[in-house]
Amino acid sequence: MSATKQRITVIGSGNWGSAIARVCAQNAIKHPDFFEREVRMWVFEEDIDGKKLTDIINEKHENVKYLPGINIGENVVAIPDVREAVKGSNMLVFVLPHQFVYRVCESLKDVIPKENCRAISLIKGLDYKDNNLLIFSEEIEKILGIHCAALSGANIASEVAQEQFGESTIASRVPEDGLLFQRLFHTDYFDINVIADYRGLQVCGALKNIVALGAGICDGLEYGNNTKSAIIRRGLVEMRKFGKSFFGDVHTETFFESCGVADLITTCAGGRNRKVAAAFIKSGRPIEEIEKEMLNGQKLQGTTTSQEVNHFLSARNMTKDFPLMTAIYKVMYENAPPESIALDLRTHKFKD
Amino acid sequence: MSATKQRITVIGSGNWGSAIARVCAQNAIKHPDFFEREVRMWVFEEDIDGKKLTDIINEKHENVKYLPGINIGENVVAIPDVREAVKGSNMLVFVLPHQFVYRVCESLKDVIPKENCRAISLIKGLDYKDNNLLIFSEEIEKILGIHCAALSGANIASEVAQEQFGESTIASRVPEDGLLFQRLFHTDYFDINVIADYRGLQVCGALKNIVALGAGICDGLEYGNNTKSAIIRRGLVEMRKFGKSFFGDVHTETFFESCGVADLITTCAGGRNRKVAAAFIKSGRPIEEIEKEMLNGQKLQGTTTSQEVNHFLSARNMTKDFPLMTAIYKVMYENAPPESIALDLRTHKFKD
Repeated sequence: MSATKQRITVIGSGNWGSAIARVCAQNAIKHPDFFEREVRMWVFEEDIDGKKLTDIINEKHENVKYLPGINIGENVVAIPDVREAVKGSNMLVFVLPHQFVYRVCESLKDVIPKENCRAISLIKGLDYKDNNLLIFSEEIEKILGIHCAALSGANIASEVAQEQFGESTIASRVPEDGLLFQRLFHTDYFDINVIADYRGLQVCGALKNIVALGAGICDGLEYGNNTKSAIIRRGLVEMRKFGKSFFGDVHTETFFESCGVADLITTCAGGRNRKVAAAFIKSGRPIEEIEKEMLNGQKLQGTTTSQEVNHFLSARNMTKDFPLMTAIYKVMYENAPPESIALDLRTHKFKD
Repeated sequence: MSATKQRITVIGSGNWGSAIARVCAQNAIKHPDFFEREVRMWVFEEDIDGKKLTDIINEKHENVKYLPGINIGENVVAIPDVREAVKGSNMLVFVLPHQFVYRVCESLKDVIPKENCRAISLIKGLDYKDNNLLIFSEEIEKILGIHCAALSGANIASEVAQEQFGESTIASRVPEDGLLFQRLFHTDYFDINVIADYRGLQVCGALKNIVALGAGICDGLEYGNNTKSAIIRRGLVEMRKFGKSFFGDVHTETFFESCGVADLITTCAGGRNRKVAAAFIKSGRPIEEIEKEMLNGQKLQGTTTSQEVNHFLSARNMTKDFPLMTAIYKVMYENAPPESIALDLRTHKFKD
């Protein structure tokens, strides 16, 4: 099919990065006409009991720190220098914590090929800057000057690594790139659909975490099924409205994909945003304390996004148009009574 | 507003019928300009420890058999004769098991007013007849010659009776009837939206039970979140495709309502369809046996609908177009390996 074989680099090696490198490595072997066999993975070097993490990965084919117990493939090569890892690659898979994105991209500007090179973002969330919410794939495009697709779906990394059946969604503005990335990620157990709406996909990936806080508040209050499903549904409706209001061409169809309703359901059923919010309600203590205790000092995606979205909406005088997201923010950060999570959803018909 | 006050009869007095009669009774008091204070409820007479169920309800204002512990309102009057209960009423709320619908409607033909009378169906499922699937509100319209709306949503009866916050959807072809029924059912804890797509609403209410069997099979196999959310998502997609393929004017918007995605989520999270299917997989015994044991001889809505939908699709040579519903049927009734629930969803891209 393609004249030259694609060389793949996975930029990131956490839990999800390692699981996805494993998928890429399988497909590199399966489709030798399309991909170079070797899949390079940038690993932020760490010392593990006196040994370098990259050496362990390259000897044992296992990321003992972030995806223990799983062979990620003998054709995955861990490289500690990100510029080295990317040199000559024409398919870049970004799967790192969002605080590293800009720094890493800046360092890659003069390394990547200017022709026949494309990226895909598996980065979670939106970037909040100057009271604006930015789409990571667009930020990567701006810095690197290459096209960037995105992947998101109802994907718990460890389940993908164990080859449990699941689905995911790739969004790409450039159809050929979408197909090429689909070939890189699609397997019998990781079923990928390709859509064009890369903004809708990334909006879903960020806002679902706010809705999961709502589901957690609901669980903390021991509310029943009717209330919880109302909150999840309103969340879906507000996610869609948010996308259509602020990101232009967001499609309704996107919400029927794995990146939409499926990821929302998974995140509201399990997931740490839900768990931490439930613990916050049950304990009555500040959310920052609960986060610190339960997450070892890390911040929840949902709480950060909740604050950012609230500032974004407040600046536009539009908090009233998103009553669920606003109620969640107020419960988490303004001491609003937790019950307002449901009370604020009432539509007050026929009041007189 | 309206010249004459509406007289309300709830036809049915099971768990959901009693909870909904309570809602109607509250709104009859709240909106005296619109509704007669008295709400009549047809009760299939039963003997409870030597006393008539209607007498108990009328004395204690409690349906001790089907909604114990809840005061349904002193303005609910239980009546054992359905023709008597309906005489002079102009808002009929049908909330009975579907096997009684035709018989009851036939008996009402010559009792109901021919003018200024309307009905709403809270009946679950679709009616299977001559290898066709019929919409209950349309069947009621045909027999009685009056317009019939429909109500469905993520509503567990006991939670509505306890006034836990939830949502529901009314679908009505006639906008004024939709508004009148909204006034009859909407409360601060039971938030009602009105749409026009009465067919889509009723298709959702029937097919969600099949998807819940799929979720149960998944749980029985102890599959993870990725697989389960993939099955729920595919279920939503197939419900929509089924509606659009066979019921004409079914709207995508309907699936964003409480009757759509919210009810699906609730049914797949709890609900007896899911539970029985999980027990079926774990035990390895015939589904009929499990149903008998767990449901006291009753049949599950989901298993019946699964069989009917499979016959319907087989007759049209279209089982392949609905791989999830077909896989569920085959696992339940044709000894297909339970794992096919996920295996049959694979889209087999790039096979060669």
